[in-house]
Amino acid sequence: MITYSSFFSRVAENQQGSAIRKMGVMALRDPDLISFAPGYPDPATFAWEAFREISADVLGSRDSTTLQYGPTRGLPNLIDAIVHIAADRGIKTTSENVMVTTGSQQGLDLLGRILVDPGDVVLVELPAYTGALAAFRNAGAALVGVRQEEDGIDMDDLDAVVERERLAGRRVKFLYVVPNFQNPTGLLISQAKRRRLLEWAGQRNVLIVEDDPYGSLYFEDSATVAETRPIKADDTEGRVVYLSSFSKTLAPGFRVAWVIAGEPLIAKLDVTKQTQDLFTGALDQRIVFEAWKRGVLERQVVKLRGHYQQKRDVMERSLAAGLGDLVTWPEPRGGFFLWVALPRHVSADDLLPRAIEHKVIYVAGSAFFVDGSGRSLMRLSFSLPPIPRIEEGIRRLTELVKEEVSRHPESVGT
Amino acid sequence: MITYSSFFSRVAENQQGSAIRKMGVMALRDPDLISFAPGYPDPATFAWEAFREISADVLGSRDSTTLQYGPTRGLPNLIDAIVHIAADRGIKTTSENVMVTTGSQQGLDLLGRILVDPGDVVLVELPAYTGALAAFRNAGAALVGVRQEEDGIDMDDLDAVVERERLAGRRVKFLYVVPNFQNPTGLLISQAKRRRLLEWAGQRNVLIVEDDPYGSLYFEDSATVAETRPIKADDTEGRVVYLSSFSKTLAPGFRVAWVIAGEPLIAKLDVTKQTQDLFTGALDQRIVFEAWKRGVLERQVVKLRGHYQQKRDVMERSLAAGLGDLVTWPEPRGGFFLWVALPRHVSADDLLPRAIEHKVIYVAGSAFFVDGSGRSLMRLSFSLPPIPRIEEGIRRLTELVKEEVSRHPESVGT
Repeated sequence: MITYSSFFSRVAENQQGSAIRKMGVMALRDPDLISFAPGYPDPATFAWEAFREISADVLGSRDSTTLQYGPTRGLPNLIDAIVHIAADRGIKTTSENVMVTTGSQQGLDLLGRILVDPGDVVLVELPAYTGALAAFRNAGAALVGVRQEEDGIDMDDLDAVVERERLAGRRVKFLYVVPNFQNPTGLLISQAKRRRLLEWAGQRNVLIVEDDPYGSLYFEDSATVAETRPIKADDTEGRVVYLSSFSKTLAPGFRVAWVIAGEPLIAKLDVTKQTQDLFTGALDQRIVFEAWKRGVLERQVVKLRGHYQQKRDVMERSLAAGLGDLVTWPEPRGGFFLWVALPRHVSADDLLPRAIEHKVIYVAGSAFFVDGSGRSLMRLSFSLPPIPRIEEGIRRLTELVKEEVSRHPESVGT
Repeated sequence: MITYSSFFSRVAENQQGSAIRKMGVMALRDPDLISFAPGYPDPATFAWEAFREISADVLGSRDSTTLQYGPTRGLPNLIDAIVHIAADRGIKTTSENVMVTTGSQQGLDLLGRILVDPGDVVLVELPAYTGALAAFRNAGAALVGVRQEEDGIDMDDLDAVVERERLAGRRVKFLYVVPNFQNPTGLLISQAKRRRLLEWAGQRNVLIVEDDPYGSLYFEDSATVAETRPIKADDTEGRVVYLSSFSKTLAPGFRVAWVIAGEPLIAKLDVTKQTQDLFTGALDQRIVFEAWKRGVLERQVVKLRGHYQQKRDVMERSLAAGLGDLVTWPEPRGGFFLWVALPRHVSADDLLPRAIEHKVIYVAGSAFFVDGSGRSLMRLSFSLPPIPRIEEGIRRLTELVKEEVSRHPESVGT
């Protein structure tokens, strides 16, 4: 075999795989393992029967657009549907400002390619979603972290970071932010802070990339739709690029998501997407469009709010019962994640191999921090496992953490 | 609205849209226009009923993998099927050497990203497929053209080009080649030349990227399966990266294609694909796998060989009858394209606006040449239009070319 190393680009040499994806693959291999690692939706909730009917209808009608090459920006009907969905979230837009993407991951990747030259600064929350970090890093971005408070980004830190980076001669391209039930923390940025962020971005001339996969999955016992209003809804000058997806509400297997942005940005994204995959799967777009048109999506999100709220309740109760005096977490008011702070001297990274022995896994918090911090944090996903598995998984985790603490009793309460 | 120009990356500033995609969009808007422009398969041939049954079955069975997040490399069953399909083409490989991609366009884009640093040389045929040119250009490649003869690449020119580029201090990463019924020329590289290319690549330490979307669509009156044997079939050292697709045989709307390459390359492609779209549509992969398993693919390619051969016959007959004394073309022995040489002083670029007035379009040959040549050539796609439309379209084209020649009689025969 030949040696490939002399052929690889610098991007290829420097790339890192996703810790979360690796955990996901591992979980698939061992059915006894209880995985709180990947943020997968629960397939028991998928609208299987509706999808079966819809696919039979659209394939039965033999409309060539269902299986033919299609426009790079997306199926026109679906784009119109997205304009309506956006309006329901308070975002006034037009079809010219929308592009369909092959999952939001593609949207993030395309944004990296059109906005980032190697060395440009992208601001990210501490912690932030790993898939976004990987996409921006592959474009050569210098990822610079900004502290979070309970109600979202620390504005003072944000401004100080930008000041510092600009003084150092670097261009600050955008701030990446997940305001609704953030991955990994589950935090909801307050509406007051969203308005401050938008105002600040205008003053500092920085773009905001707002990623919103979980916004419609708020829990009705603790959050309202008004609290999930996107930053984009108040954007009058095209400052905000908004991403959302059908992956968490309908199903990820369809790979259908979207970007809303100023027309010059959409035009650049369009040409870049052309070279990347020509267009997003046509049958998938048709099924998603029909699911919206037939009211499946609307019924689905109502169901999911209750479903995931119940799973969150089970995980919180199990965790409180087992480890209530040892760990803390901010209550998730929507989304898929519980963000757990272990006793300060317990490392989630070091604990992981033993967790796997105990047949339970999570994602170590450090994966989400660009500054190397987060060692005593872990992300637990309550979305996928059935309720008895959540209870059993937390029992295993409880045992594990208690063992660890008993080895290092000095760590508690310090 | 804000001004975005200061935010764009250099890639975004320099990007160009695809001429073919623009033609395709235009054709969709005017139903009177007869389009020989995009290389779309004929939706009348799609296995609609089989796809309807398969999708009902796989959605009815509620196997979560049909709609859940899946492995980046592809559905394991489909990967195994691809190993079998490759074996039928003479390529011995294993599942570790295969990755599913979201269309071959993604494969080309990913290869650009893992292999090309800005300024690296990629060798391409004169002419070559525009989608590949765009993908490699976006990665920063210096695209350098190599002349073609009737039986494929001119070996002397190829060697001289590499010598020259290396003397100039540039790294030559790979040769991109479409040996079977090339887009746009329809040419089939001879088996003897394929062996010489592989040997040459070993001596010069250059990779070969072999793109084979049309190989199974040979026309039985003039080509044999043996003549389509891929270069990859004789590659013992992992020198060749092989791409193929279900877009031309099953349907492009599924966005399912594949790459076969050495394991270190697959590993890099895998990590890059993770950041690009996580994985290829799960339902699409399931349907394609079932279509292979149930024999739909096998029946389909037999049918398509006859179908497209008949369309080629109609286009050739119409063209010979109308313009036989003015234009020439190499006979397509498979694939979708007729590559027409106009009288030397007629420019296909200049003719295009008048062709649109005459309600017929094609792709001007210059789009496929990285050296600025090809002005008197045009690519005519016979795959999509129904037979009466092919005849009518060629009548319109005949009228147009005759008008043009009568304006400039000096151009004929020179």
